[in-house]
Amino acid sequence: MTMNLESGDMDILIRGGTVLTMSGGGEIIHNAVIGIKGDKIAFAEKNEESSSRLYRARNTMDASGSLILPGLVNTHTHLPMVAFRGMADDLPLMEWLSRHIFPAEAKYVNRQMVYDTARLAIAEMILSGTTTFCDGYFYESGIARAAMECGMRAVPSAGFIDLPFPDSPDPANHTGIAWKYLARWKDRSTLITPALFCHSPYTCKPETIRIVKEAARKAGVPFLIHLAETQEEVRITRELYGLTPVRHLHRLGVLDEKTIAIHAIWVDDEEIDILGDCGVKVSHCPESNMKLASGICPLTKLIDRGIAVGLGTDGAASNNDLDMFGEMDKAAKVDKVMRMDPTIMGAETVLRMATIGGAEVLGLEKEIGSIEPGKRADIIILDTKKPHLTPLYNPYSHIVYSASGADVKTSIINGRVVMKDRRLTTLDVDEAMAKVAKIADAIKKDRLAF
Amino acid sequence: MTMNLESGDMDILIRGGTVLTMSGGGEIIHNAVIGIKGDKIAFAEKNEESSSRLYRARNTMDASGSLILPGLVNTHTHLPMVAFRGMADDLPLMEWLSRHIFPAEAKYVNRQMVYDTARLAIAEMILSGTTTFCDGYFYESGIARAAMECGMRAVPSAGFIDLPFPDSPDPANHTGIAWKYLARWKDRSTLITPALFCHSPYTCKPETIRIVKEAARKAGVPFLIHLAETQEEVRITRELYGLTPVRHLHRLGVLDEKTIAIHAIWVDDEEIDILGDCGVKVSHCPESNMKLASGICPLTKLIDRGIAVGLGTDGAASNNDLDMFGEMDKAAKVDKVMRMDPTIMGAETVLRMATIGGAEVLGLEKEIGSIEPGKRADIIILDTKKPHLTPLYNPYSHIVYSASGADVKTSIINGRVVMKDRRLTTLDVDEAMAKVAKIADAIKKDRLAF
Repeated sequence: MTMNLESGDMDILIRGGTVLTMSGGGEIIHNAVIGIKGDKIAFAEKNEESSSRLYRARNTMDASGSLILPGLVNTHTHLPMVAFRGMADDLPLMEWLSRHIFPAEAKYVNRQMVYDTARLAIAEMILSGTTTFCDGYFYESGIARAAMECGMRAVPSAGFIDLPFPDSPDPANHTGIAWKYLARWKDRSTLITPALFCHSPYTCKPETIRIVKEAARKAGVPFLIHLAETQEEVRITRELYGLTPVRHLHRLGVLDEKTIAIHAIWVDDEEIDILGDCGVKVSHCPESNMKLASGICPLTKLIDRGIAVGLGTDGAASNNDLDMFGEMDKAAKVDKVMRMDPTIMGAETVLRMATIGGAEVLGLEKEIGSIEPGKRADIIILDTKKPHLTPLYNPYSHIVYSASGADVKTSIINGRVVMKDRRLTTLDVDEAMAKVAKIADAIKKDRLAF
Repeated sequence: MTMNLESGDMDILIRGGTVLTMSGGGEIIHNAVIGIKGDKIAFAEKNEESSSRLYRARNTMDASGSLILPGLVNTHTHLPMVAFRGMADDLPLMEWLSRHIFPAEAKYVNRQMVYDTARLAIAEMILSGTTTFCDGYFYESGIARAAMECGMRAVPSAGFIDLPFPDSPDPANHTGIAWKYLARWKDRSTLITPALFCHSPYTCKPETIRIVKEAARKAGVPFLIHLAETQEEVRITRELYGLTPVRHLHRLGVLDEKTIAIHAIWVDDEEIDILGDCGVKVSHCPESNMKLASGICPLTKLIDRGIAVGLGTDGAASNNDLDMFGEMDKAAKVDKVMRMDPTIMGAETVLRMATIGGAEVLGLEKEIGSIEPGKRADIIILDTKKPHLTPLYNPYSHIVYSASGADVKTSIINGRVVMKDRRLTTLDVDEAMAKVAKIADAIKKDRLAF
């Protein structure tokens, strides 16, 4: 018996295809139907003729032959660095930073540049299946604004660093600046979760780290920090404070379940225990770590210790793209070869890191990261009718090892179709590319590019 | 003054764009024009109004804003394994082989299956910018035929293994089989360079390796062998012959400048010297090596020793795709992080491995691998008007770190346009996918998939 439930009519119906729910039980639904009402998933179930539900919607999408999964969550990036993509590669880290990246940032980063580059980066991310990103940079309000306008979910994190950087504040003003930023963005949009970001234990004074974390704690928002990324950082932190980076932050009292440690590569077993005991989350950025030759975090140990780990692309200057599919592929493969064990970091584990795991890292696991009734409708649809995705045995393997961002056909964020058949609906791609190309022209003239 | 050179009219003109010639001098031509006459490149030069050349052709392509480079050379793959793509991942190597791959090969590999799967693999390769591949498998004539029909350049290598495999011959018949295969394919098409392939030092008897290499030597064709891929192989070879794999082959007298060692991971400094002294070429397959946790070859040492190294995807079952862009990205990044040095394996070095370096490995460096007058016209054109390829500073960095196979727009092999605006002109993709999907359905019923 079917009932005519007018009030139950959906805004969007996705019919057909295979849904990887990424729920706790890891349910896969073949020949599925997903109903979206407003910004939420109303149901996700098998498309059965015997269903008592009347499948009706303003917008019905045929997804037969597709893979449908939660939108990908990029837990760490610096969007404006798309302007520096490929500007200076294959250099020693310090030369790359001091002769290219830092001077380019000092000269070119401003309010307008951050907004313009963020729009290009958001286009790239939507086109490659990301529906949520966590960013840390200067002039972060521009990034929050770009995300909100483009219908992208974001955790934009206002950056603090005790070096003469574009908008870096006098430490005495940290609290005021943090509160002003949080006041502007907190509860403004369901899409935006503002956060605070200290650059690192070696570029931020202990007082800065304490003050910024305190503000984040009071506001109940995430606090992010690059942590134990390089051996050089460990050396400097030891020299400055007599402690390794993790122990230094532990002594400062800033490690808790709303602190996100980015990288966490050079951590010993005791430090892993500290992170685990404090409930700290980790953002793992394998491509950047590989390209900069920083090292690879002890992923299996972190996960075995119960630490939530998400994936991040890092900025485009050290990657050089924002494609989470490439990140998944490398997360799996580099761990296997570094630990000489092909059974670790299996495809399903890796896809969890890129979806529900990332959501957990950002404290958004009740909102996003899986396809389940009641969650926000952040959903991507992959076209599998392609030679490199044929045949299909195991959808997890396909997504991690064979697919790329270009295979994402349709993307829905917060119930809104932001990409359909690879066309973006919320921003003008050509305009976004032209604006950043213009910034790059100036950088080229300055000979900061390599 | 322009002259009307009727006899000089081109078949294809590519106008505009930036050409990475990959010539010995590493010349880059901005705002270029390339003339193709028959199967060869007639000229590649700056598109200047003052040129005395009359640019005229039956087929003129506008490549403004594009990157143009030699087609990519995949030096090692097993095309029919696309049928096993993602069939059983993240397993211990021996379990993967003995419970999944070997039984599936024993049951499903036959003449027709090899031909059908090769067509799908060729579609995938053209779609991702490969114009030449070197394959090693059973029923290799089916692969040569598929390549010739699809207008793809290939070095199809007939496989020998002393195990009860589909078409594995009685060792007594090796010579006859090798000669029959070579006679069939030698000088048949400019596209096809037949070769011979022994599976490995531990699956082929010394006599087999000697006989097959002898046939290859007499015919003047490449001889390929998996070599020093795993620590287990080193252990077994030591146990069987009292020598490491490289030393074992050296004693057999089969190492020379027409021998291609695939993988070459577990080689010590003395073995690198042996390979270098003998002029052996190496095929490096980082993605497969990472996924199977085999290890990573000492790339810098091999290159410093003057050994020609090309890149290969290996079969799709251990990768799980045939995209050489992914291979380049990983070749650069995994080496940097394993050796903890961001300056090694720079983007230009890696792109050389994937083009002229690969051509050299296959003995085809006079024919292909660079865009220079007189060479065969194997050319790919990348569309860079995309967010993830914006802005553009360094084209090498772009190709290695930011681009993917899906960015290749047009592909020309041997002067023939085999892909235009991502549509293949020489094979029916839907038919190729349907045939392999059907093979996969049978494999699924057999519960060999995981």
